Amino acid sequence: MSYRPSIKDISFCLQQVIGIDEFYQSKGFPDLDSDIVNAVLEAAGDLARDVLAPINVIGDHHGARLENGQVIIAEGFGEALKVYAEGGWNGLTAEPEHGGQGLPKTLEQACFELFHSANMAFTLNPTLTLGAIEALSAYGNARQKTIYLPKLVSGAWCGTMNLTEPQSGSDLSTLTTIAHPTGEGLYRLTGQKIFITWGDHEACDNIVHLVLARLPDAPAGTRGISLFLCPKYLIDENGHIGERNTVRAVGLEHKMGIHASPTCVMAYEDALAEMVGPPNEGLAAMFVMMNAARLAVGTQGVGIADRAWQQAQTYAHERRQGKSALTGASNAPIYDHPDVRLTLAISKAKIEAARAICLLTAQAFDRARKGPESERSRAKRREDFLVPIAKAWSTQVGCDVASAGVQVHGGMGFIEETGAAQHYRDARIAPIYEGTNGIQAADLVGRKLSQDNGLAAQELIQDISHFIEHNESKYVFHIKAALEIFKTATKWIIENKTSDGASVATAANRYLMLSGDLIGGWLLAKAAVAVKTLIDQGHDDTDWLNTKIALNEIYASQILSAASSHMTAILMTAAPLQSLSYEAVFPE
Amino acid sequence: MSYRPSIKDISFCLQQVIGIDEFYQSKGFPDLDSDIVNAVLEAAGDLARDVLAPINVIGDHHGARLENGQVIIAEGFGEALKVYAEGGWNGLTAEPEHGGQGLPKTLEQACFELFHSANMAFTLNPTLTLGAIEALSAYGNARQKTIYLPKLVSGAWCGTMNLTEPQSGSDLSTLTTIAHPTGEGLYRLTGQKIFITWGDHEACDNIVHLVLARLPDAPAGTRGISLFLCPKYLIDENGHIGERNTVRAVGLEHKMGIHASPTCVMAYEDALAEMVGPPNEGLAAMFVMMNAARLAVGTQGVGIADRAWQQAQTYAHERRQGKSALTGASNAPIYDHPDVRLTLAISKAKIEAARAICLLTAQAFDRARKGPESERSRAKRREDFLVPIAKAWSTQVGCDVASAGVQVHGGMGFIEETGAAQHYRDARIAPIYEGTNGIQAADLVGRKLSQDNGLAAQELIQDISHFIEHNESKYVFHIKAALEIFKTATKWIIENKTSDGASVATAANRYLMLSGDLIGGWLLAKAAVAVKTLIDQGHDDTDWLNTKIALNEIYASQILSAASSHMTAILMTAAPLQSLSYEAVFPE
Repeated sequence: MSYRPSIKDISFCLQQVIGIDEFYQSKGFPDLDSDIVNAVLEAAGDLARDVLAPINVIGDHHGARLENGQVIIAEGFGEALKVYAEGGWNGLTAEPEHGGQGLPKTLEQACFELFHSANMAFTLNPTLTLGAIEALSAYGNARQKTIYLPKLVSGAWCGTMNLTEPQSGSDLSTLTTIAHPTGEGLYRLTGQKIFITWGDHEACDNIVHLVLARLPDAPAGTRGISLFLCPKYLIDENGHIGERNTVRAVGLEHKMGIHASPTCVMAYEDALAEMVGPPNEGLAAMFVMMNAARLAVGTQGVGIADRAWQQAQTYAHERRQGKSALTGASNAPIYDHPDVRLTLAISKAKIEAARAICLLTAQAFDRARKGPESERSRAKRREDFLVPIAKAWSTQVGCDVASAGVQVHGGMGFIEETGAAQHYRDARIAPIYEGTNGIQAADLVGRKLSQDNGLAAQELIQDISHFIEHNESKYVFHIKAALEIFKTATKWIIENKTSDGASVATAANRYLMLSGDLIGGWLLAKAAVAVKTLIDQGHDDTDWLNTKIALNEIYASQILSAASSHMTAILMTAAPLQSLSYEAVFPE
Repeated sequence: MSYRPSIKDISFCLQQVIGIDEFYQSKGFPDLDSDIVNAVLEAAGDLARDVLAPINVIGDHHGARLENGQVIIAEGFGEALKVYAEGGWNGLTAEPEHGGQGLPKTLEQACFELFHSANMAFTLNPTLTLGAIEALSAYGNARQKTIYLPKLVSGAWCGTMNLTEPQSGSDLSTLTTIAHPTGEGLYRLTGQKIFITWGDHEACDNIVHLVLARLPDAPAGTRGISLFLCPKYLIDENGHIGERNTVRAVGLEHKMGIHASPTCVMAYEDALAEMVGPPNEGLAAMFVMMNAARLAVGTQGVGIADRAWQQAQTYAHERRQGKSALTGASNAPIYDHPDVRLTLAISKAKIEAARAICLLTAQAFDRARKGPESERSRAKRREDFLVPIAKAWSTQVGCDVASAGVQVHGGMGFIEETGAAQHYRDARIAPIYEGTNGIQAADLVGRKLSQDNGLAAQELIQDISHFIEHNESKYVFHIKAALEIFKTATKWIIENKTSDGASVATAANRYLMLSGDLIGGWLLAKAAVAVKTLIDQGHDDTDWLNTKIALNEIYASQILSAASSHMTAILMTAAPLQSLSYEAVFPE
């Protein structure tokens, strides 16, 4: 089926749920108005539909390969990268002084949802470049910004993030790549990095690797990690491309999905690099990129879910089997079988909730940087709190919806040519990379919840309470119940964090799911309330608007109803895990 | 990692949870004792570990291919089929008069769990042959039984099931393959069948296709379908193989998983066939096979889940990262991180519940056929009620656990060489074939629940109530709460079935999940109670036994706690689905 950019839904979410207009009025982005937002979305949709979507299957079939030390990417991907770069998409949020357009992150994420929907493997390339732009904008020195940022923003060069090593994945404290000073202010990197997304290819003029490594005299652990910039081709004093640097892709992973994205093993053999930011503070710099990168992965979850849903929705409309219990018709579209329609409706409700969560997170990101000074620290707390939820909850939605999409297709869903299987395989990486969803949950309960004595959670509770108090019960009663549970769970986590860390760690994933369920429910209820107002104001398009009210009801019954079971699970404690030693549960 | 047949757990489930011993005493299988059961399990485990598991990855890589009209299967699979046949495994439950061993279905499913764990794509071949044996045993005439059954039981020939056509999947009433009488008591079949598992290959001497087709004068719909037997090679009067019949594989599907299982498009071009059973009653015959086939697919779910769990468990034990919140150790095995251990514990609890559900279903199957006459109708009701639950709940477990297995591996889980991804891909078919899980739910609420005015559900409620009353509250309190919810839900479904079929259909999947959660919880609690007794009796091996008590606790908090949310979802009704017309929710 052909892919349709979900601009109408995204625009509704931005305007009615997130309140992007209200945000413009707060003068963070004084030149922006709804017309610009919609024009950007339309242009992003055109790129997604006309350029990225058509090569998604080709990328899956042909993948990338390593030949004579060179990474060959799938047909059409190099050309698509050029079209993408010419569209200026890397520069959406970059500062105008580096060639960017200075637009909000919120709008960028809305566009990237479309790109990921159309072609997740492709869109990983610019996603990583955005991360490099972000890191250099925050930590690069003036020369680095002058030389590298305009090239990255224009898309002439690409960026990568090099963190993981075979022995050092979730725990970066054990990484061993070393950086020897050359004595001329530069460094020579030696080591091996794995899982480097788009680590090498010939589709852009240069690749700017951001690499975590240790100085020879660095302290052990995470306090001895510095960030380096290591270009594939060395740059001369005038910023021109020179010799090939000694960083190479020495292996390519054979993955379950996102085949078109070359996942490289990178070997650094005395590769010339420069430091970014102060020595031994690389992890802090990486964390700056990480918030953005984690949100970007959450957005991937939304994008792939929407693509999978669209395909299943269309199939269910076209495929006819049996008599419908909804309409009584024989040889009915399977969409008219309640179980199939419910499956698709739950998927749609989850997509809209995840989209709203990701865009709310992006808005907090914008407010923390560009909003009124007085709001920035609150917005930063909100961003920090939401990021692990946006990442983990939305990527789980990506997998759930892609699986539902396969199921709706029946036997055809398992046949690769149908396309549903690709979404299922592609979606599966998102809960893993940029910190597994387990790491996100640990981050939420271990770090985000305890900042400022749980202030971020309290502020969230206030906002949701305020919404409940000021709106009709029929749209919000289910959130009220879930909010009470969330309050109890939050209190329990904070109280037990120090005295019983193991039990809190055991509860972490459920607490994250509860948080996501609640926030998603709040935002869907906001949508329902907005629809009520629009209809009362005489807005037409009522059929479409009313679907938002139905999705809020379905979300309440089918998803938010899990809040009490999350609570039971949270209260389990770690005690039963103690009997389950590896040897006891899995004897030889 | 090397695969370990889970004989200890399976044997425990058979003896302590299902009470297979008690069943022998009822004289259904007078010659059987625990020693035989364990010897059969050991032999099955040897085959699984030594013959089937080693070629599982080879099968995934090489798959099957169609060359010059001939299906070529993956290396080693033909040899493994010979070893399998020589072991007499097709004859486990077949009658001695056809070369079988007359053992219980319960034991057969226990063995097949091991085979599916080791190699699901391979084991589909004998699974289909077992279906053919079953159909011919029940519906074949004396000559058919004499000629075909011994060959199928010995494994010299294989069997297939041919139901689906492109336009006729879940709804078989629309199938069009036609059977013209030859006038000599035989028929000529013409039509195309799709999704035919192991539809063609050269690894056995002949293939016996069981085919649903219509007589020229048959009534429309499901009452005009007859069952035919169509051999790949025609059989002469003496039962010897003769000419090639005009049935051929004309296509092979390119699937997401179970690559080694050739999924064929079969063309029947005046293919010579004989009828099995009476004309126009083919669907009834197929339904006989279907109960067994659906249980077999549930067992696949258990098998693939156990394999995925084993692999993740081992990886979590070997992989070290970060500091453990359970032990305080640095560079700890990730198994000692609460979130990882909980993920694996939930997986294990689900596997044990699904295994027990499938074996309980198999036991009902045995009791209905071989148990004391007075028990047979009750046992048949139990079998009918449990089959859709065993199929749908266990295959969902297969997918959930395979996904958890990928997640535990982190980035490595997404790399094909690790093996976790194969389980994830292979597992995904099981909720689809043999009737999608949606069809199972519809069967449960639409047919099984209303037989004899819901007697099967009432009997189940009685059994669980009896268990709760006679055991310590600490093992059973959570089942008590879930049972009350199940009672309410059952009543609601029965009351609304006629007046509001759409709402009942909307609730069907949740009712099935609630049923599975409850029955699984009951059986895990039985295990916990059995452990308590064994320990009180001075049984050693307490570390292993105590894991069953911990798994019961974890299941209660993490899974059975969802009962109330299932109930909320069940009560939603179809109303909100009405606003979600295809056009409203997905406008152009």
